[in-house]
Amino acid sequence: MNTFGRIFRVTTYGESHGCGIGCIVDGCPSGLGLTLDEIQTELDRRKPGNSPVSTQRKESDLVEILSGIFEGKTLGTPISMMIRNIDADSTKYSEIADTPRPGHADLAWKDKFSYVDFRGGGRASGRETASRVAAGAVAKKLLKESGVEVIAYTKEIAGIKAGIKAGDYGISDVEGLRQLVYKSVVKTPDKKQEKDMLTTILTAKKEKDSVGGIIEAIAFGVPPGLGEPVFDKLDADLAKALMSIPSIKGVEIGSGFEAAGKRGSEANDSFMIDDGQIRSRTNHAGGILGGISTGMPIVVRVAVKPTSSIGKKQQTVNLKEMKETTIEIKGRHDPCIVPRAVPVVEAMMALVLADHGLRTGFIPRRLL
Amino acid sequence: MNTFGRIFRVTTYGESHGCGIGCIVDGCPSGLGLTLDEIQTELDRRKPGNSPVSTQRKESDLVEILSGIFEGKTLGTPISMMIRNIDADSTKYSEIADTPRPGHADLAWKDKFSYVDFRGGGRASGRETASRVAAGAVAKKLLKESGVEVIAYTKEIAGIKAGIKAGDYGISDVEGLRQLVYKSVVKTPDKKQEKDMLTTILTAKKEKDSVGGIIEAIAFGVPPGLGEPVFDKLDADLAKALMSIPSIKGVEIGSGFEAAGKRGSEANDSFMIDDGQIRSRTNHAGGILGGISTGMPIVVRVAVKPTSSIGKKQQTVNLKEMKETTIEIKGRHDPCIVPRAVPVVEAMMALVLADHGLRTGFIPRRLL
Amino acid sequence: MNTFGRIFRVTTYGESHGCGIGCIVDGCPSGLGLTLDEIQTELDRRKPGNSPVSTQRKESDLVEILSGIFEGKTLGTPISMMIRNIDADSTKYSEIADTPRPGHADLAWKDKFSYVDFRGGGRASGRETASRVAAGAVAKKLLKESGVEVIAYTKEIAGIKAGIKAGDYGISDVEGLRQLVYKSVVKTPDKKQEKDMLTTILTAKKEKDSVGGIIEAIAFGVPPGLGEPVFDKLDADLAKALMSIPSIKGVEIGSGFEAAGKRGSEANDSFMIDDGQIRSRTNHAGGILGGISTGMPIVVRVAVKPTSSIGKKQQTVNLKEMKETTIEIKGRHDPCIVPRAVPVVEAMMALVLADHGLRTGFIPRRLL
Amino acid sequence: MNTFGRIFRVTTYGESHGCGIGCIVDGCPSGLGLTLDEIQTELDRRKPGNSPVSTQRKESDLVEILSGIFEGKTLGTPISMMIRNIDADSTKYSEIADTPRPGHADLAWKDKFSYVDFRGGGRASGRETASRVAAGAVAKKLLKESGVEVIAYTKEIAGIKAGIKAGDYGISDVEGLRQLVYKSVVKTPDKKQEKDMLTTILTAKKEKDSVGGIIEAIAFGVPPGLGEPVFDKLDADLAKALMSIPSIKGVEIGSGFEAAGKRGSEANDSFMIDDGQIRSRTNHAGGILGGISTGMPIVVRVAVKPTSSIGKKQQTVNLKEMKETTIEIKGRHDPCIVPRAVPVVEAMMALVLADHGLRTGFIPRRLL
Repeated sequence: MNTFGRIFRVTTYGESHGCGIGCIVDGCPSGLGLTLDEIQTELDRRKPGNSPVSTQRKESDLVEILSGIFEGKTLGTPISMMIRNIDADSTKYSEIADTPRPGHADLAWKDKFSYVDFRGGGRASGRETASRVAAGAVAKKLLKESGVEVIAYTKEIAGIKAGIKAGDYGISDVEGLRQLVYKSVVKTPDKKQEKDMLTTILTAKKEKDSVGGIIEAIAFGVPPGLGEPVFDKLDADLAKALMSIPSIKGVEIGSGFEAAGKRGSEANDSFMIDDGQIRSRTNHAGGILGGISTGMPIVVRVAVKPTSSIGKKQQTVNLKEMKETTIEIKGRHDPCIVPRAVPVVEAMMALVLADHGLRTGFIPRRLL
Repeated sequence: MNTFGRIFRVTTYGESHGCGIGCIVDGCPSGLGLTLDEIQTELDRRKPGNSPVSTQRKESDLVEILSGIFEGKTLGTPISMMIRNIDADSTKYSEIADTPRPGHADLAWKDKFSYVDFRGGGRASGRETASRVAAGAVAKKLLKESGVEVIAYTKEIAGIKAGIKAGDYGISDVEGLRQLVYKSVVKTPDKKQEKDMLTTILTAKKEKDSVGGIIEAIAFGVPPGLGEPVFDKLDADLAKALMSIPSIKGVEIGSGFEAAGKRGSEANDSFMIDDGQIRSRTNHAGGILGGISTGMPIVVRVAVKPTSSIGKKQQTVNLKEMKETTIEIKGRHDPCIVPRAVPVVEAMMALVLADHGLRTGFIPRRLL
Repeated sequence: MNTFGRIFRVTTYGESHGCGIGCIVDGCPSGLGLTLDEIQTELDRRKPGNSPVSTQRKESDLVEILSGIFEGKTLGTPISMMIRNIDADSTKYSEIADTPRPGHADLAWKDKFSYVDFRGGGRASGRETASRVAAGAVAKKLLKESGVEVIAYTKEIAGIKAGIKAGDYGISDVEGLRQLVYKSVVKTPDKKQEKDMLTTILTAKKEKDSVGGIIEAIAFGVPPGLGEPVFDKLDADLAKALMSIPSIKGVEIGSGFEAAGKRGSEANDSFMIDDGQIRSRTNHAGGILGGISTGMPIVVRVAVKPTSSIGKKQQTVNLKEMKETTIEIKGRHDPCIVPRAVPVVEAMMALVLADHGLRTGFIPRRLL
Repeated sequence: MNTFGRIFRVTTYGESHGCGIGCIVDGCPSGLGLTLDEIQTELDRRKPGNSPVSTQRKESDLVEILSGIFEGKTLGTPISMMIRNIDADSTKYSEIADTPRPGHADLAWKDKFSYVDFRGGGRASGRETASRVAAGAVAKKLLKESGVEVIAYTKEIAGIKAGIKAGDYGISDVEGLRQLVYKSVVKTPDKKQEKDMLTTILTAKKEKDSVGGIIEAIAFGVPPGLGEPVFDKLDADLAKALMSIPSIKGVEIGSGFEAAGKRGSEANDSFMIDDGQIRSRTNHAGGILGGISTGMPIVVRVAVKPTSSIGKKQQTVNLKEMKETTIEIKGRHDPCIVPRAVPVVEAMMALVLADHGLRTGFIPRRLL
């Protein structure tokens, strides 16, 4: 199942070392101004090869729009976007055809499909997420038109915490925050901690190892009423969207796991009237109650596991000979995937909000 | 959207203080032996009024099966199950019609639907989860026929951790584990910690407050290959299913958030050959790689927030007069929802696995 | 798959001789005034046992609403409706367990599910359509609030054509037309032809045979813009909805099969300006172009095959002994199902239009 | 909604005069041998510019496969196929921007989307069906592997009937039949009637007019048990699939509308034992009873309206000036769309059968 969403729907395709990757965005309202540049900008934020902490694979990730846009505006028809694979170096992958890499989907994929494209992880590769970012760029533009902004950033790398709290920011700070994040090599707005994070990543890299981290994302400007109980709750759909990103092992909303240790009197957000509007004093709920947005900022966090591809020697098995062996992964890979996952988290959150915005009628089916 | 699943599909209905609640299970294979008792047993595990840590509302929760079963076997047609509401005491709820309870969906629900049944939280009530448990009972029976067992238990209450690790158990221990869990008033297999947990809950109750906790669930016997990348990954669908349960604020798979602080060499599960079978030495992945089951036990944890209904005075607003006020919630409620959420977690996990089992072909479309 | 619709969704359940039948309507906007009587009235139009041309099974078909309505208005939550089976006489069905009835789904159903409830056709019985009518009643009320009226009637029975053309009527005539139709024992507005139709049916009945016919349905007041190309076109969804009714073997829109013999210059509807509005002079398109409603009345016709249950001796096989045999169907059945299918056609058309009305935003997600 | 199917799913994109068109086929089992040639062959059967009865637009319709296939076999991942638009001549379309063509979707589309790509009908163009044919080629290959063959042909053009009955053929005749059909300029296997059909089309063309017709399609080798009552019945899904093809105004199964005039004793297909197998003597049911395939050949017919684009002067309105005017359509168009619709009907039927084959488990989720 490579389709996500109910009204605003994305279908992605593509293997890491095939001809190309891409997606179809279906259900985007007509009349939305959208340029190739807006898509490309988002892709550039995710693309590999531009930092010491990412893989050396060079992909220009140039996107082409094949349909759905006419004279700079969406038609309400499917928007097909394609990115050709350029720098796919498959030479180092032949050995993994029969020796599954620990932490990777190689073996599970083979168990499921029998016949697989092992080169670079095939479709299980993180490269697939470029399609999500392209689709997310459309969602983000649509949300922006409706006053909604989504921003994600590195909250923690290898235990090093950025000094930033979701509550510190408002919708007017988004642009500045985004500048900070995308200037940062590790995609954190905390310039002080950035250095430590970077050092930790490079140390791990040197030791042929990898590290993980935590990404936080906030959506500002989401009105009350998004989310469709009892199963398509907004938090449920966010959890699914985020957990479907490669390497994510946990998702939490608002206080998340911390809430489990609190008392009700601490965890509840009491209501107040502020400038004629009802809002809550705190936002432990992360902007969602009963699966429905409350009007407060929506706050989520995801746990990113350390990159599975490491140079260190690991135990595995040779599938053909059915005997134990070891593997030292060569190929090119990111010692820490967190920075490159940041725009993917943003994209997936935007996809969920655009879809629910349309489902609820908050976003109209056509823009005039 | 009150339907969950793609092939094994559940649609639930019902308000807390309406005529009744229930569900339709569609897509269950024909030929599955299924009795009313098997459903009722699961419902009894969730039903209120049977312990000092739960609400005093007495609901016998007697289920009636209206269709889909003929002479003790499923027909492959929709199984309709209904539970009438008996002990709905709506008298204490009139006051909340205009003063939304902090932590509850009252206001969000009103923002979304305008016209609401405020009595007992209406459809946002935890009572809705009884329908999930009834549906889950069908899924669990179906899974059992295919050698899959799902078990959940209280892992932590108010910071008090049960001395149990997912890895301690195998499929042969499930029945014993289940006995331990369902004999426990807080639904934990750790008899030692149970007492502290109970005391903590009762203290909170006395202080008109509430506590939260963590539930862990394990599925044994799931074969490799379940999960449909890239969006309907097994972990993604589990995350959605679990996050859709009222009061859940976080979901993690395997090592979860802990993985964010580890190195790749620690977090990866290396492969070995054990008794002619490939398995991993450790199970940090929680039985899922690349969104596909690996054959190892599937391990998830959810964070349950403290019950939102508390007797303590809280700040809120009067919606009619649009001015701030306070509320002391009366009604009947659980000081800790964790124990009663245990069978719900089990049910939702079973629903996901039954659905993916059918999607993948692991569970046949008819049992002969 | 017993669910129909994308936003306005109906899930039905129930076997002909089980405990009961019913449905859940999910996705109906909140705030719609809806009474039990409005549902019951529609069910009474379909219920058996009230005329010489229908089965003698007496079912009061009393519907109970279990959820989704509070003080006379819909809540936006699932509306669960249940009808208990009363007069299910299973005695005459034991013989068909092993000798499939020609024209019936007995054998196909057995081939598919292996384990079946053979009594009265189980879920393949026309009785299942009562659930559709109950759900359709909700859809019709919702459409009426938005100015849309759906009406169906018998157009032809056994080749005897009613003297009525879709183009003869406008939205202001609907109430009168409905009166005519539902006063008629064969559900035709043509009083002159009614007698012949009735005679023909009774003759067939006497000869232990059955007849078929054609039903036409019109929707007035549908605005331009409903329908979601390229697959969920309005005519495509209508075709599916109508073809899913038992005994329907053909569906056509507007001129339908007649159009195949025309020239483009005859079949095209030219545009004109009428009272400041663009409309077409003719309506060969049946109100749908390119899968999208044009604002003209939507006109469909379905072919109803003669009732498969006939008393005449027919060739069949004994499944146990695997040898040819004959069958004379006893049970109770309609010599012509057309009149009782009329409200079902109306219901299915209403379900499609309500769903597309919501999808397009023509019908709001909540009524204030 | 540009996605069709539940397990075998097709999403199409593209405007007639945009950059290109194409589709993603998701849910195809892994391990299916599939070459570019097999797709191209099907596309060549539909492509324009190769006969006196079709438009003069020259499109080579060369397809490129971007993903989902590795070394000649499917991976079980999305198969993305793209066709670039080459010979799009938009010059003649500027005038239709404001004067909707009778019989076309121009006005309905504008009413729905407001912002449209009017060039060549945009996405409402028949060109969109090339994507369906590409997807259908995959479905046909998959079906063939399971012993199912789908064949469609022109049954009637402008009232001239081909002397062929569905019952005349068996599965062993398919290849020969296909040869006959695809050699024929009007895609009919009846060489005698072909000449008259052709003359009639050319006469209409000369008179700046167009004609319609009827296409019949048969599926051989479909086992009993496909179809998912009560809504996703096989005939219901076929009806939807076929009605979604541009210009189709009617769909019938087996005897179809003829059945409405028959008696039960004539319309029922009695069962017999033939060579140890149960089959029916006749096939009025068209291979489907109760929405489930019976094992007999599946027979459908569709009514194709005459091409809406005609050179004759027609009445329309000028949208800008809101006054009546006339139009003489220039552009390039088919005087009879029936022959080019034949492979599209085949494709859509194949898509439905592949999907239901997978849903039922008749087609496995992976081919070894």
